[in-house]
Amino acid sequence: MIERVNVSVNGYGTIGKRVAEAISKHSKLKLVGISKYTPDQDAKLANAHGLNVFVPKDAVKSFESKGIAVHGSVDGMINESDIVVDASADGKGMQNRQSAYQPKNKNAIFQGGEDETVADVSFNARSNFEKASGKQFIRVVSCNTTGYCRLIKPLLENYKIKHINAFLIRRGADLNDAKGSALNAVEWKARSHHAHDIQSVLGDIPITSIAFKVPHTHSHINSMNILFEDGMPTKDELIDIYSKEGRVAVLNNASTSSQIVEAARDLGLPRNDTYAVSLLANTIEINDGGVFFSFSVPQESIVVPENIDAIVSQAGLMNKDESMKVTDEMIGIPNIKKNLEKIFA
Amino acid sequence: MIERVNVSVNGYGTIGKRVAEAISKHSKLKLVGISKYTPDQDAKLANAHGLNVFVPKDAVKSFESKGIAVHGSVDGMINESDIVVDASADGKGMQNRQSAYQPKNKNAIFQGGEDETVADVSFNARSNFEKASGKQFIRVVSCNTTGYCRLIKPLLENYKIKHINAFLIRRGADLNDAKGSALNAVEWKARSHHAHDIQSVLGDIPITSIAFKVPHTHSHINSMNILFEDGMPTKDELIDIYSKEGRVAVLNNASTSSQIVEAARDLGLPRNDTYAVSLLANTIEINDGGVFFSFSVPQESIVVPENIDAIVSQAGLMNKDESMKVTDEMIGIPNIKKNLEKIFA
Repeated sequence: MIERVNVSVNGYGTIGKRVAEAISKHSKLKLVGISKYTPDQDAKLANAHGLNVFVPKDAVKSFESKGIAVHGSVDGMINESDIVVDASADGKGMQNRQSAYQPKNKNAIFQGGEDETVADVSFNARSNFEKASGKQFIRVVSCNTTGYCRLIKPLLENYKIKHINAFLIRRGADLNDAKGSALNAVEWKARSHHAHDIQSVLGDIPITSIAFKVPHTHSHINSMNILFEDGMPTKDELIDIYSKEGRVAVLNNASTSSQIVEAARDLGLPRNDTYAVSLLANTIEINDGGVFFSFSVPQESIVVPENIDAIVSQAGLMNKDESMKVTDEMIGIPNIKKNLEKIFA
Repeated sequence: MIERVNVSVNGYGTIGKRVAEAISKHSKLKLVGISKYTPDQDAKLANAHGLNVFVPKDAVKSFESKGIAVHGSVDGMINESDIVVDASADGKGMQNRQSAYQPKNKNAIFQGGEDETVADVSFNARSNFEKASGKQFIRVVSCNTTGYCRLIKPLLENYKIKHINAFLIRRGADLNDAKGSALNAVEWKARSHHAHDIQSVLGDIPITSIAFKVPHTHSHINSMNILFEDGMPTKDELIDIYSKEGRVAVLNNASTSSQIVEAARDLGLPRNDTYAVSLLANTIEINDGGVFFSFSVPQESIVVPENIDAIVSQAGLMNKDESMKVTDEMIGIPNIKKNLEKIFA
């Protein structure tokens, strides 16, 4: 009888490193190891964390010459795995599917940087956990799409939505990115992919999105203006709905993105990760123009619990409620939510 | 018979230097001079432009010791003026009104950084030119409010607005500011003052605003989501309406704020000033969620023509259409509009 499912992480960057750590903590999962394609800082950090580092066969020497301990080949890692979490660079997931996962008949979880055609289902735990059950290929949607899904799904369960206008203020780069947005400009993308991406999870809801990229590194600041068909929530009802969501923190008094990051640092959260989407409750406006509110998305960590739940759903290890509860407890989301809500009460 | 109205500019910073230059070009106005309170770079630049520099009586020596030619005292400058354009630091306008303009019975034009109670009317040329006629104290509303008024007024003339949600992405500082926004954060202000400020010009229209401050220096990028009572414009109708507005440039293909600034630089526009609000036509969305579009506000120059028209209205020199035409031709707005529209066609 197999006790644990063998999972590897192909690509060890911003998402890969976080998902690998979460997998290694999960009682039903065993982390086979992670793959690296360039002998950089992250490869050395993987060694420092005691992870098995797998590299392409022809790259072993270049890694070892830099003092990086290599455990085996990427090919061998995939062979040892029941499931591969593909956290490689955008677009490379599709190549990996064709060159490795399909030929080897392995299950894989892709990230939101891939086109939706990479997978059988686009996944958000709160919205469609069950749909991923038994599927060979699952795509965990991107950070912003995950945030929108966590907030829209509970509204769909209670109200009839007429239209959503989504406005995204995107961070220009992550902290460790070697390049990013323009340094002194706002860039806009009308009809951004986010609307379609949200529909890939939630179905054909009426939604339009526009994205503004600005030069800062911590968190996306998103907003929604929502029109309803019959009846809309009051502010209290809205806050009540979101207060019950495990992966949504309701902050009443935050006023900058950096305050939330500073709280995460000061609370000692590993890598400053909060996982939860923060509803900025002081931005809620309800009037003839519909319901408006803003929220903060921790772009590096929000998809970590979603990746774990995708694995659990794919492998049929637990049902939705059980999986989300186990994942959340494991990475500390209930405490993070409680602390953030108290600090920004 | 008085040929020209004597006008001085009290405060020579971002707005003051631009308004002073425009006054000096106007055939009906005579620039008495400008005032400076600190012997800084701008004081030397005023000398370089050949302007009469007036300073507080007790500061003459400190200016002269830095090689700055002083023409007289601020008090004397105000005495010589029929109208004072107050372009001093936010809040100082109210002090100047009480200490100088009222006792000396002088007319004054204030800027949008002052509370609306500083003046008898909050002014936007396109929206309420006539209302300023003969008033002693006029407040030209701030840059963003000016942009919103230029775009909302033509809609009010053609449609019935149910509600406007205004969404501002503000620049963190001007280029020459010694301090500005947080360097790596987005700051939000729900229920920002802009909604009320727009109402101070346009009356009690239903509008809500939220402002996000981000770390960049060139232009505010604003958006509106507008719901209408009966019937709303098509995209073509919207573009047609704004194409006819002299102080609105309709750009089809811009995608960053910096592109517009680079065009201004490359066209040789003095101080890179465009004066016009740029409608970003590629952001227009019209659907069940109402009408959505974004626009760029050149924060340093947009209020310059408004200040000139405020003077003309106050002094009763011309009617609205004549004044706006003369002002626009004088500072080159028709050519700027034509060029920007061609470059971003």
